[in-house]
Amino acid sequence: METSQSSASCGTNPQHGDLYSAACPCREILDLIASKWSALIIGKLESEPHRFGRLRRAIPGITQKMLTQTLRRLEGDGLVTRTVIPARPPQVEYALTDLGRSAAEPLSAVRAWSEANLGAIRAARQRFMEREAL
Amino acid sequence: METSQSSASCGTNPQHGDLYSAACPCREILDLIASKWSALIIGKLESEPHRFGRLRRAIPGITQKMLTQTLRRLEGDGLVTRTVIPARPPQVEYALTDLGRSAAEPLSAVRAWSEANLGAIRAARQRFMEREAL
Repeated sequence: METSQSSASCGTNPQHGDLYSAACPCREILDLIASKWSALIIGKLESEPHRFGRLRRAIPGITQKMLTQTLRRLEGDGLVTRTVIPARPPQVEYALTDLGRSAAEPLSAVRAWSEANLGAIRAARQRFMEREAL
Repeated sequence: METSQSSASCGTNPQHGDLYSAACPCREILDLIASKWSALIIGKLESEPHRFGRLRRAIPGITQKMLTQTLRRLEGDGLVTRTVIPARPPQVEYALTDLGRSAAEPLSAVRAWSEANLGAIRAARQRFMEREAL
């Protein structure tokens, strides 16, 4: 099968990436998706669309800059839509696309793992510090 | 039910975190797990233990410093064991613990998503750039 090869492709198939190739652009995708803030933002948008301010309040600790940047990357990669609602003042609403929704499921498992294993990781850290102190 | 509350806990249950609380230490856990390099390292260790050099070669593009730092965090959090094998020169082998193995499954889904959606994301980026250029 012939495939058209773009300069940014890592293999013979420009539709499917190879994460264990340094040049594959799917590395950037993993970098965006596998990030704390993306996982938290997509988790909130999974239930329903959010306006910027509400999304920010729903994710305590995120800065306005980080939220803006991450939403823009998610929009650029087709995971999130940005809709300007005519109002005074105008409001901007963010929602998951079908592509974003397909990413939400694996990310939900990663979030659940992080929450569920807090106790185990704390115990491991304690043991590690004790070993290091010997 | 009474629970002992540590100063770093975010809620009433020190064993289970809440990612949507800024102070919850499970945020750090998500930050470690939901990171490109952790996802790639754990993906390689999933099949079998690796020595440092082999792991580095298996993940093209990772620097020695980033691999060392990430492995140390994974070891400190109890996801990876570090075993010194007496040899000349001594060798160090890294392997997943049971806890690390339990993280491998959700991370595998995140990696698979990143590889499988390369084509869709490229198309979305193209559309986004065209819209931005209008």
